[in-house]
Amino acid sequence: MRVGILTGGGDCPGLNAVIRAAVVAGTQRHGMEFLGFRDGWRGVLDRDVVDLDEAGVRSLLDVGGTLLGSSRTNPFKDSVEHGVAEVRSALADVGVDALLAIGGEDTLGVATRLTAAGVAVVGAPKTIDNDLSGTDSTFGFDTAVQTAVECCDRLVTTGASHHRAMIVEVMGRHAGWIALHTGLAAGAHVTLLPEVPVDLDAVAATVERVLAEGRAPLLVVSEGAAVAGADAVRDAPLDAFGHVQLGGAGEQLERELATRLPKVSTRVTVLGHLVRGGSPTAADRILATRFGLSAIEAIARGEFGTMAALRGSAVVQVPLAEGTDVLRTVPAERIAETADLRW
Amino acid sequence: MRVGILTGGGDCPGLNAVIRAAVVAGTQRHGMEFLGFRDGWRGVLDRDVVDLDEAGVRSLLDVGGTLLGSSRTNPFKDSVEHGVAEVRSALADVGVDALLAIGGEDTLGVATRLTAAGVAVVGAPKTIDNDLSGTDSTFGFDTAVQTAVECCDRLVTTGASHHRAMIVEVMGRHAGWIALHTGLAAGAHVTLLPEVPVDLDAVAATVERVLAEGRAPLLVVSEGAAVAGADAVRDAPLDAFGHVQLGGAGEQLERELATRLPKVSTRVTVLGHLVRGGSPTAADRILATRFGLSAIEAIARGEFGTMAALRGSAVVQVPLAEGTDVLRTVPAERIAETADLRW
Amino acid sequence: MRVGILTGGGDCPGLNAVIRAAVVAGTQRHGMEFLGFRDGWRGVLDRDVVDLDEAGVRSLLDVGGTLLGSSRTNPFKDSVEHGVAEVRSALADVGVDALLAIGGEDTLGVATRLTAAGVAVVGAPKTIDNDLSGTDSTFGFDTAVQTAVECCDRLVTTGASHHRAMIVEVMGRHAGWIALHTGLAAGAHVTLLPEVPVDLDAVAATVERVLAEGRAPLLVVSEGAAVAGADAVRDAPLDAFGHVQLGGAGEQLERELATRLPKVSTRVTVLGHLVRGGSPTAADRILATRFGLSAIEAIARGEFGTMAALRGSAVVQVPLAEGTDVLRTVPAERIAETADLRW
Amino acid sequence: MRVGILTGGGDCPGLNAVIRAAVVAGTQRHGMEFLGFRDGWRGVLDRDVVDLDEAGVRSLLDVGGTLLGSSRTNPFKDSVEHGVAEVRSALADVGVDALLAIGGEDTLGVATRLTAAGVAVVGAPKTIDNDLSGTDSTFGFDTAVQTAVECCDRLVTTGASHHRAMIVEVMGRHAGWIALHTGLAAGAHVTLLPEVPVDLDAVAATVERVLAEGRAPLLVVSEGAAVAGADAVRDAPLDAFGHVQLGGAGEQLERELATRLPKVSTRVTVLGHLVRGGSPTAADRILATRFGLSAIEAIARGEFGTMAALRGSAVVQVPLAEGTDVLRTVPAERIAETADLRW
Repeated sequence: MRVGILTGGGDCPGLNAVIRAAVVAGTQRHGMEFLGFRDGWRGVLDRDVVDLDEAGVRSLLDVGGTLLGSSRTNPFKDSVEHGVAEVRSALADVGVDALLAIGGEDTLGVATRLTAAGVAVVGAPKTIDNDLSGTDSTFGFDTAVQTAVECCDRLVTTGASHHRAMIVEVMGRHAGWIALHTGLAAGAHVTLLPEVPVDLDAVAATVERVLAEGRAPLLVVSEGAAVAGADAVRDAPLDAFGHVQLGGAGEQLERELATRLPKVSTRVTVLGHLVRGGSPTAADRILATRFGLSAIEAIARGEFGTMAALRGSAVVQVPLAEGTDVLRTVPAERIAETADLRW
Repeated sequence: MRVGILTGGGDCPGLNAVIRAAVVAGTQRHGMEFLGFRDGWRGVLDRDVVDLDEAGVRSLLDVGGTLLGSSRTNPFKDSVEHGVAEVRSALADVGVDALLAIGGEDTLGVATRLTAAGVAVVGAPKTIDNDLSGTDSTFGFDTAVQTAVECCDRLVTTGASHHRAMIVEVMGRHAGWIALHTGLAAGAHVTLLPEVPVDLDAVAATVERVLAEGRAPLLVVSEGAAVAGADAVRDAPLDAFGHVQLGGAGEQLERELATRLPKVSTRVTVLGHLVRGGSPTAADRILATRFGLSAIEAIARGEFGTMAALRGSAVVQVPLAEGTDVLRTVPAERIAETADLRW
Repeated sequence: MRVGILTGGGDCPGLNAVIRAAVVAGTQRHGMEFLGFRDGWRGVLDRDVVDLDEAGVRSLLDVGGTLLGSSRTNPFKDSVEHGVAEVRSALADVGVDALLAIGGEDTLGVATRLTAAGVAVVGAPKTIDNDLSGTDSTFGFDTAVQTAVECCDRLVTTGASHHRAMIVEVMGRHAGWIALHTGLAAGAHVTLLPEVPVDLDAVAATVERVLAEGRAPLLVVSEGAAVAGADAVRDAPLDAFGHVQLGGAGEQLERELATRLPKVSTRVTVLGHLVRGGSPTAADRILATRFGLSAIEAIARGEFGTMAALRGSAVVQVPLAEGTDVLRTVPAERIAETADLRW
Repeated sequence: MRVGILTGGGDCPGLNAVIRAAVVAGTQRHGMEFLGFRDGWRGVLDRDVVDLDEAGVRSLLDVGGTLLGSSRTNPFKDSVEHGVAEVRSALADVGVDALLAIGGEDTLGVATRLTAAGVAVVGAPKTIDNDLSGTDSTFGFDTAVQTAVECCDRLVTTGASHHRAMIVEVMGRHAGWIALHTGLAAGAHVTLLPEVPVDLDAVAATVERVLAEGRAPLLVVSEGAAVAGADAVRDAPLDAFGHVQLGGAGEQLERELATRLPKVSTRVTVLGHLVRGGSPTAADRILATRFGLSAIEAIARGEFGTMAALRGSAVVQVPLAEGTDVLRTVPAERIAETADLRW
């Protein structure tokens, strides 16, 4: 049996660990052969493949990113039927019997449709945003939070020395998991999520209170938090084409605080791609490895249309659709757990 | 309501985060007052207390260890009845209405007995060994594994330069969780656990195979793995009193390999207390904080005799006895997940 | 003898270590007493002081920032004579016999003038930018570079996964030391410094070459590098007041590359305050400690008007003026050492 | 011109960075060709070579250890004349015109003799112990100290929780640089070096004092410190052959403290090979890169018999003999700088 592997969407720490585990276990236990598609679905459509064997993946466990490359190419861009036919024909051309698709909402969505059309696909869920349903968590998220927290730990010492409010913007357009966990682990005084309306006066009051206590306020903001009010939009700079230049959520928050607390010094740090790069944490290496192993066993057993998932401390296979049905945002009870506390 | 807090047993990263969360939430939400007992149950018996308030705990989130100190004092050493009476009278003396006991098997075992005797106790489970049942995992374990893996990452580069087998001994007398996860995340070629009989000839064969492939073998060994055979015991050095000096599991493994592979150079590193110290990882700060919050709400609701526990991604309260009934060793299916693979 | 300590200018890792070493050695060896001025020269002018003793500084060695706070207040803002008189009178008011001024160009400049006016001052040079003359290096710089390099290490893995050019902007308005050393240690393909004219076509050619080799270009840019050409200024967005919004050097570089290489995906990360915060590296803790010890011995011997300096592996006292005479930019020979190499 | 490269002696972080810089600069600037000898002088004697080119070294900057492997083989073991002849004939056999020898005392000693015999050799000094004369410091040392300090930072939190004295043994048989710098940067209360006689009663008094202050004593010990007294030797365990089993300096210190302070709990951690492995710090990557560049320019200019050296902030070439004439131990003035202070 020849298995094709692809990684789609934004990269995240642990992708290489999934590939390594899949290739090692598939080869040793089931005599599978492997090839990799370069840059996600683009490599499938272009028949752009690379050989994958044990020797080539052995040293990948602690390497960030994906040796296969990734892209946001969607084979269903024009039409689903056409896309399915293209993928099916491409897999036949390169002699692939089953596909291991490692990716997030988009990649697994494509995999779900392929399954419905009879293509042999198994998925491994990936997102640093932790917003896939069907699994307790995804690899990459732990590394992202750990990196963001280490950055916050650094920023608070300089904030305290200068009596400054430090604003840290983290990834999370629709789900605030990274912000929530970063805020919890870094001891943030304010954490703004896409899931919760932003009360800028309350934020300003917290900043004032913490400064009055002789400490440096730390504010962690999801890029998707609804920070900017109407005033901000009106006063925002315009670019050469007359487009409003609002900046990210962190920059918006700085501007809003400047209006309310003109004497308070603030600094914004946009962590951005810092949190999706680098060597995975031990926890992510383990979760990614277990996902890779579980996916390969599913392929060996012919359980197509499933994806690896963490449930408690067990890794199991669940229907692909469970991972993509609904975006897993931060639930109300997790927000309520700490929203009222003044750290 | 006045709540007493104690930390018992071996320290671990996150203890301070539990204390911080409990004091902040208890004070702000429920108007509780707090005091800490120094050095676990010893502080209770000796009425050795320290004031705990919000200002005193605010900066504790990222600090390893426990500001309260810890000890292995068991108040039931002489008799349970006497111990219960002593604790009850001590709590009355210092005016404590409810107790938050943060600890492992021993501490929670005492807490269970106290509950049975009508003392108002809530627990927060702690063990770097991850061997408490009733909860998917405990804080401190993630930090321990992360630290051990960082050490292994360092050791493999020097091993490879000198074509040496590197042996790393980690904590785990009865349960091999730290070794299993360290081995998985560090890419160990051999992982020896207390739960699995040791086949030294197979270990030697793996070391030879990996060296022949031009790589450096990494061997991760639980301190409780049954490494030493009868020969080792016979040939072991004796101290001045004629006692056998077997050394730890790492040292024993080195000696066994020396017999089987006399030409292979090996080095043993005993990580020991390195993995229980230091600032907690983001994941452990979050889990510890959530355990502290859950325990305080349980106290506020009068749910005594319970302890905080992680179930999937939810933190809930479960009966104290669940945490101490049986030691949670590595189950057979987790061992089977990877035992046959040649990384 | 009573010694006053202040920290001025931007904070940097190691300030607390200087304070700790000075207070411990001054107290134990010379029976000195200490007080701290809050927020640099502002605390002097405002007589805003805090007690400093051994117990209060013991745990400061590994803590980033400065417990004394800092500011950019310049006591000579109105006039030097007035400033000198004010400082002299303030020192008398709080009973300070000698001053330990820890700071950069501005702070040491003030100290130099005070010395000329007969005030007993000794300096400890501080700047993450490493641009003070008179000393081989300053504490804080090593930590800044180490932090920047760890960030770059993370960014290259995500860049490689997406065939993206990663632009990293680091501090350095007038001197490119942080960029030079970050670029060297992170393996950057392009490093842009304030000291060297920017050839954007050559930068674009390098980006294309590295991408063609299947690698991800890493570009490290000093905030003070002269990136933007006339076109960039013309096309830049305007804010509500008609001001040009050029953005930082990283953003400018991204815009210039977009013009030249429209198909190449880029991402900018502005490290900013990340590199001045956090726990100092071992090397910075040692250098800061040695600077504190040297400064205290200078005070004890009455060698006022001097500052601690690293010369080779020795710490010595040099005239304060040597540190502030000229800004130490990257010399031509250091640039020539690597400028032509294609990593 | 064809240049051979070898790495000899114990590995250290930065070896790969020297190789990378040498190959890149030699190829691009001087059209040199390169080959590597495996495992130091052994590879020379055995004509065991590996091709080295730009593509093969590009990713080595941050990789610990040496891709060439290392050994302690000394080509002069039998006789110097014989060894010189052997090396000369081996270099001719593989077509090497000049040799870049990266190593410590032994390797550079061989290089010095070869130079005297007319072989074209240039050296790059390497030792984590920092004990080579002729250069202000060597790469690898900074990483070793940084790693040791991070370990100490972890150990003090568990020590404090249990009121324990933590003993940390670090490398350094003849020179105490690692112990001195680790002790300074970790805030050790006791630092024992090979250069200074050990006063065990004073050590015990310090341990008692620090414990009495409610802190955890940290003791950093060079493996070469003369800890064990006559009693220790007498009471030491014997192995099966009747050999005294003294253990390392850390273990000896624990035993001595147990005699003097029977009630004090202690834990020993032997860092050993942990500090010589892993990715080099930014500072070591830079120093190693500069050493590689300097050595290649020396080869290009025909300055044989020299080695790269750091003098202040400049990298220069000095006669090979300067590096090996005398072991650079910690000088009395560095010891006096801090020996009397009670941290």
